Amino acid sequence: MMYGAGDVRVENIPDARIIEPTDALVSITRACICGSDLWPYKKMEHDDAGRSMGHELIGIVEAIGADVVKVKRGDLVVAPFAFSDGTCIFCREGLHTSCVHGSFFGANGIGGAQAEAVLVPQADGTLVVLPVGKDDALMPSLLTLSDVMGTGHHAAVSAKAGPGKAVAVVGDGAVGLCGVIAARRLGADQIIVLGRHPDRIALAKEFGATDIVSERGDTAVARVRELTHGLGVHSALECVGLEQSTLTALRIVRPGGAVGRVGVPQGDSLPAAQPTFYNNVSVAGGPAPVRAYIEELLPDVLEGTIEPGRVFDRIVNIDGVPDGYRAMNERRSIKVMVKF
Amino acid sequence: MMYGAGDVRVENIPDARIIEPTDALVSITRACICGSDLWPYKKMEHDDAGRSMGHELIGIVEAIGADVVKVKRGDLVVAPFAFSDGTCIFCREGLHTSCVHGSFFGANGIGGAQAEAVLVPQADGTLVVLPVGKDDALMPSLLTLSDVMGTGHHAAVSAKAGPGKAVAVVGDGAVGLCGVIAARRLGADQIIVLGRHPDRIALAKEFGATDIVSERGDTAVARVRELTHGLGVHSALECVGLEQSTLTALRIVRPGGAVGRVGVPQGDSLPAAQPTFYNNVSVAGGPAPVRAYIEELLPDVLEGTIEPGRVFDRIVNIDGVPDGYRAMNERRSIKVMVKF
Repeated sequence: MMYGAGDVRVENIPDARIIEPTDALVSITRACICGSDLWPYKKMEHDDAGRSMGHELIGIVEAIGADVVKVKRGDLVVAPFAFSDGTCIFCREGLHTSCVHGSFFGANGIGGAQAEAVLVPQADGTLVVLPVGKDDALMPSLLTLSDVMGTGHHAAVSAKAGPGKAVAVVGDGAVGLCGVIAARRLGADQIIVLGRHPDRIALAKEFGATDIVSERGDTAVARVRELTHGLGVHSALECVGLEQSTLTALRIVRPGGAVGRVGVPQGDSLPAAQPTFYNNVSVAGGPAPVRAYIEELLPDVLEGTIEPGRVFDRIVNIDGVPDGYRAMNERRSIKVMVKF
Repeated sequence: MMYGAGDVRVENIPDARIIEPTDALVSITRACICGSDLWPYKKMEHDDAGRSMGHELIGIVEAIGADVVKVKRGDLVVAPFAFSDGTCIFCREGLHTSCVHGSFFGANGIGGAQAEAVLVPQADGTLVVLPVGKDDALMPSLLTLSDVMGTGHHAAVSAKAGPGKAVAVVGDGAVGLCGVIAARRLGADQIIVLGRHPDRIALAKEFGATDIVSERGDTAVARVRELTHGLGVHSALECVGLEQSTLTALRIVRPGGAVGRVGVPQGDSLPAAQPTFYNNVSVAGGPAPVRAYIEELLPDVLEGTIEPGRVFDRIVNIDGVPDGYRAMNERRSIKVMVKF
């Protein structure tokens, strides 16, 4: 539970229980702390009621409502950070994050996933059964399918990364690193990472980054141009959400290029409306429809073609969650796994 | 020549002449006043040097430079509002408005097209020979290929209009009306026009608009939702450029939808960064690569399948240009043709 900036506590709360016939109850075996959890960790005002945190999980189905048919008790499942019915107009279009019966874990009365168990609404639409045991060695990479790998993929897709393209990834957090994996997987020729933390940079290179730009602002923009024959990149993945990083992403894209934004925007407006207009730069992205991407990415994880689980560099148990937040907030950790 | 807001004068200036071997000299038979010319007409500060105006033209090639091979003296040609070499990396990608050797008529030392003659740089890349006589009945529609029809098409393409889609056009000016033609031509099912001028609305309906929304702001947004089963449109064409119209365009798009903007943005930032993020709304567009679209649209104009020339509701000669500006600025005219 988060009670305000920097104030995360481990507490006993009432057990989740099935209410709707479409619900499932899942006991969690793996969860995470997300970069987006750090926004409230930095600036949430104190709230006596507290806020149930976490939205990434793998777990075992403990009970199902009367209408649930696609998962059964005992199944090992992964859940995307947003639940969805899988049948509405937006789900059918692959935009599960806009499901008319959906929302996010840890919001609107649904518990968070940094917990021993969680209620999963719309279980048939939301959960994907994993064909492995609960302690399989692939568990870290499978866990990233609940958010960061799908989100990095969404950034790359939204930025139109693909064969022959020069791609830049703004941000070297777990999502940015997964963006590198995604850009490479989609066939990008050149992958420039804008970041400055040695451990993250090293991992980015192993994931397929071809160039690193550690500068910021004007200097970073100039450096990316140098690396791209003076043109800029075809695709920029905005994986931070700050106005400065968004501006950088918009400025390093060449005419006709695209920015894919997945960093939760911290400002009310998008800068550079005129230069992006004159250069016909497109801006797309948003919360990743991770549910739609699990089917596409799962085979690559199972085959070991991609290893997004390497973004986890710290494992804690439930009591270690407050320390995990501190470590991520102080950039001592890229991403923290919570193991039950 | 424009000397400041509201101050347009017809003057004798030195004749244009060929300088580079890639130039052509074109005597103009038809030109236009553009909605974008009204921005300086409304707010340009006085400038003693004056500014040569106009960027839409059909004319006859009078002379060519030594390297020009695709057009010859006597050819009737249409020029897009931007000239381009047709061979650079961006032209090859179809983004002629970002040509590395290109620019716009009436800027950077190149004369405007509200004139008896104009120098056309990069003539081989820029000019398209028309297979009709100079007074052909199709002249109005052919003239729109220099800007407004291509620009409306770009808005529709950028907003991903197509079969099965609900489309909204924000703005009932000549570009918005051409956006209606383009959306219909691309197969859109529903075409909602946001506008309030009876003459323009009548023409929009003839062009294929299925619904008209005359309200503004919140009421307009609510009305568009009503017309689209509460969802919003797949595609919004922003054909104005003001912050208010841009905000409306962003707000009437449904989750996963797209805004195509072609109105020259008058503000520095794009509003609604957060709602568009949470709804995965994409924003694309910019100056239309009209040169790329001429080949696609010309057959439809020649066959009479589309009649964008109907946006012209006033014809003036060169001495009537100042009156033409006034009429467009006061909304007494949709679009003015200048006939030589």
